[in-house]
Amino acid sequence: MQKKSSVTYFRIILLGSGNVATQLGLALRQNGLHIAQVYSPHSKNAKALASQLKARPVSAINKIEKNADLYIIAVKDDAIAMLASKLKLKDRLVVHTSGSVGIDALKPASENIGVLWPLQTLSVKRPITWRKTPLCLEANTKAGKSLLEKIARKVSNEVVWINTEERRLLHLAAVFASNFSNQMYVIAEKLLKKKKIPFTLLHPLILETALKSLDIGPVAAQTGPASRKDTKTLKKHLKMLSDDKNFRQLYLSISKSIREK
Amino acid sequence: MQKKSSVTYFRIILLGSGNVATQLGLALRQNGLHIAQVYSPHSKNAKALASQLKARPVSAINKIEKNADLYIIAVKDDAIAMLASKLKLKDRLVVHTSGSVGIDALKPASENIGVLWPLQTLSVKRPITWRKTPLCLEANTKAGKSLLEKIARKVSNEVVWINTEERRLLHLAAVFASNFSNQMYVIAEKLLKKKKIPFTLLHPLILETALKSLDIGPVAAQTGPASRKDTKTLKKHLKMLSDDKNFRQLYLSISKSIREK
Repeated sequence: MQKKSSVTYFRIILLGSGNVATQLGLALRQNGLHIAQVYSPHSKNAKALASQLKARPVSAINKIEKNADLYIIAVKDDAIAMLASKLKLKDRLVVHTSGSVGIDALKPASENIGVLWPLQTLSVKRPITWRKTPLCLEANTKAGKSLLEKIARKVSNEVVWINTEERRLLHLAAVFASNFSNQMYVIAEKLLKKKKIPFTLLHPLILETALKSLDIGPVAAQTGPASRKDTKTLKKHLKMLSDDKNFRQLYLSISKSIREK
Repeated sequence: MQKKSSVTYFRIILLGSGNVATQLGLALRQNGLHIAQVYSPHSKNAKALASQLKARPVSAINKIEKNADLYIIAVKDDAIAMLASKLKLKDRLVVHTSGSVGIDALKPASENIGVLWPLQTLSVKRPITWRKTPLCLEANTKAGKSLLEKIARKVSNEVVWINTEERRLLHLAAVFASNFSNQMYVIAEKLLKKKKIPFTLLHPLILETALKSLDIGPVAAQTGPASRKDTKTLKKHLKMLSDDKNFRQLYLSISKSIREK
């Protein structure tokens, strides 16, 4: 219990109020870590999240505490460097939560910098299972590494140390595995709307496709017309998509990618 | 209990020995329905599946029983019409199990024809949850409808009557939702191999992406660089894919599709 309470009293400042800031803030709090301040330039957003986290809201940068243990910058990728350049925190640990931004973007903020990237799709209103979510960490000092690891382990059992280059590749792979597979569901739903067929009919298929890939690997899991080189069905499908140039083009190129296994 | 045993004594002939034949045959048997014969032109395959189903193997068409209650043709799409043309079964109920082949392909076989399409990705070695799998049915006679519904309900709670045109659209949507989303996992795995990063790191993300889409719908579920119009990250990703023309092309066209929401 000693260990737990020693971590509890770290002072953490959360910068941001979007999907990642909200879910990560809640996860930290639920695991006994205290968020001291929530910063957002929009005072309404700062207040809303701060109230959920029992933290103080701040919307002026000069009101941000200078002596906290950890600053978590959870804002849009293209806003990270700009925000970091406005923070002057000497040797306090400053991390961002992005998959694609390098650790160096934080250099103007502190000597002690790092990354805490949750490898998960996060939305403001949807809680996730943090305990199993990989937290991809990076830090430029031994002290920073030690502190970041301690805090990350409070939230997840899956703590992974990777460098910026590896994280960027993992982020690119995640875009395919998550955003792009989700877009396939979006297209399926749109197609079904033409004949008012409910998308829910595809639910068991979508879930089984994901579970099967995790179980036996996606290459072994593949089925369907492209995989069995069923050109007759492929031609039928292309004809059905003749009204929709974009879907037709996607159908062709993804089928080609499947056949090239 | 009476009802159960009355269905049990239907005589069912299964034609085929692949993914669908195997899993559907096992499901029927596990739900108290008896498979009388398993037909495959390859006697080894006929024997292997027949032995699992406690049925008799047949590899010559003229050895197939003429008076069974139901004939299920579970062979490759482009082999259905050919096989049907060799069966002369008068008014016995003959169905196929394909999403994309019309009911009419069975006309040469019988006056009483139909479709029993399981809307699921099936592989020989992987059992599925049949009880929740939509079974999409079609039949051309009242008697056929009644019999097919009875048998389908033994296997699944999700019995849906749709016509050939609706089934074809559903099959096309299923290709996007299942085969194409799985291909996104395949590409993610390939990308990670470049730096020997384990694909298992993406497991929680893949599962959450599927569950989230079922829960709040795929349009609301979308996250990522394309969705938030983060062109800087998009450009970085395209650069990382510069060695792989096909993946780069897919990245571009799927991102475009996401942005066009």
